[in-house]
Amino acid sequence: MDAITLDHLRAGGKAALARALAALERQPRAPANLALLDDAFVAAQAHVIGLTGPPGVGKSTLTGALIAEYRAAGQSVGVIAVDPSSKRSGGALLGDRVRLAVNGEDEGVFIRSMAARDRLGGLAEQSIAAMVLMRALFDKVLIETVGVGQSETEISLAADSVVFCVQPGSGDSLQFMKAGIVEIPHIAVVTKADMGVAAQRALSDLTGALSLSTAGGAWPTRCLAVSASEGSGLAELTAALDEHRRWLEEDGRLTRQRDTQTAAWFRAAVRERFGSHGLARLDSKSLSPEAQPFSRLAEIDARLA
Amino acid sequence: MDAITLDHLRAGGKAALARALAALERQPRAPANLALLDDAFVAAQAHVIGLTGPPGVGKSTLTGALIAEYRAAGQSVGVIAVDPSSKRSGGALLGDRVRLAVNGEDEGVFIRSMAARDRLGGLAEQSIAAMVLMRALFDKVLIETVGVGQSETEISLAADSVVFCVQPGSGDSLQFMKAGIVEIPHIAVVTKADMGVAAQRALSDLTGALSLSTAGGAWPTRCLAVSASEGSGLAELTAALDEHRRWLEEDGRLTRQRDTQTAAWFRAAVRERFGSHGLARLDSKSLSPEAQPFSRLAEIDARLA
Repeated sequence: MDAITLDHLRAGGKAALARALAALERQPRAPANLALLDDAFVAAQAHVIGLTGPPGVGKSTLTGALIAEYRAAGQSVGVIAVDPSSKRSGGALLGDRVRLAVNGEDEGVFIRSMAARDRLGGLAEQSIAAMVLMRALFDKVLIETVGVGQSETEISLAADSVVFCVQPGSGDSLQFMKAGIVEIPHIAVVTKADMGVAAQRALSDLTGALSLSTAGGAWPTRCLAVSASEGSGLAELTAALDEHRRWLEEDGRLTRQRDTQTAAWFRAAVRERFGSHGLARLDSKSLSPEAQPFSRLAEIDARLA
Repeated sequence: MDAITLDHLRAGGKAALARALAALERQPRAPANLALLDDAFVAAQAHVIGLTGPPGVGKSTLTGALIAEYRAAGQSVGVIAVDPSSKRSGGALLGDRVRLAVNGEDEGVFIRSMAARDRLGGLAEQSIAAMVLMRALFDKVLIETVGVGQSETEISLAADSVVFCVQPGSGDSLQFMKAGIVEIPHIAVVTKADMGVAAQRALSDLTGALSLSTAGGAWPTRCLAVSASEGSGLAELTAALDEHRRWLEEDGRLTRQRDTQTAAWFRAAVRERFGSHGLARLDSKSLSPEAQPFSRLAEIDARLA
């Protein structure tokens, strides 16, 4: 099979991207795949938006509503839906629910579901690779996952802007944030804002709790209420996201943040494969990939194996 | 310094245990320390009880109340309080709060605080080692931690019985459990039962949600309401814990569960140090330590390093 290049992906649409992702899954270390990822890495264009929060708060509905907003504005959207519950039976497949809400014929939306197969497993690398490809191809990349533990770490390694969703009447999310177990998001959203008084109260609790919080740098966390079913609050959410993106683009913040993220997932990928012992065998230069991080990872594989 | 043996620990009280834990932290791979851990491993006697749940639900208060109950019944208690928030500033030190509630002169209570230094770090091994020592010395070992992510995995590798605490008015815990992100506990406790109607409602929500759940094997999850401040529900909780322990002792369940846990933390310890690549180099026999797991871990270290 001929190697897939970034130009192929740009010309070939969703079918070509699906083929590239399948090839990556089959042969994550094939030189052609690494070259494609490294090319995509430097061709970053999208605003990468992470949506997290407990199960059941309506993240998938919100993702669907954001897709519709962005499509109506003529923007292309790639979606990565990480299913955290596949480890046990009984959880819903988030990706499938998202899929229901969009038109499969629309070449401007691409959705990829990923299973969180194993808490300690190689998901980070796979989802990072998918994000890097989509970031080079779309205007927006949405990553939807559950905001605790491993998944939350991954979103903080991948997204430019993190949106944390809570629903009216839930209390733990706030406690997790206050205790520093859940990272402070760039934007906190109360979903199901049609729930009236309860939603207003949740919003004021959230606003109070996060009034002094900044999510890295000097960005003060925004708090909003959104009702995806009624469509209210969506324009405010996309405006806040645009504002955060503009803020990141000032003073080189976006570049610095992405460099930090790359170094972090690169370390995590080495650690996943070779443990703390493997990490200790590498000098800091080997662990700070400025460009071509995917080929560099393969070199480290060869060195440590 | 002379090697500390299990007999020294039995004779030397809390001061000797503190010395042994410090020695372990300094030289986790010293042969004398490994021998002590292996001896303690086969001398298991305590009922190991894990307490998890979101921050702020009153786990430390409940831990303090359980200590008082057990001490009043003449049982000795070791406590491991894992602080999940030390990664970021602002979180409370659970261990310190527990410490307030007990008499430091009492030789029958030993409390050890542990920081969750790094999400991917070596905490599991350190807390497992402390648990193994305490399990050989006390009647009860309580492990208190926050019930999400890495900490929750650790408690499921260490505790015989897991108690999940929720407070009235919180909703996310239930959602996490339903989605399979938080493991189903053996006992679910609504804390702050003095909150009246809200507590009753939380208890009935919990009972409804968990009515068909079994936490491994055929043990149906028990749901209880406890007010540590009023002292209500504590006798029911200790009775449910005793009942679970008796149930585990039937048909060799406790032995099987502990074997499974040992194999799991052993794998996790190898993976932490040598990654998935290191794990793949070992055969299943090397990864199923039936006795002397600590010396076996050191052997694997030497082989893979």
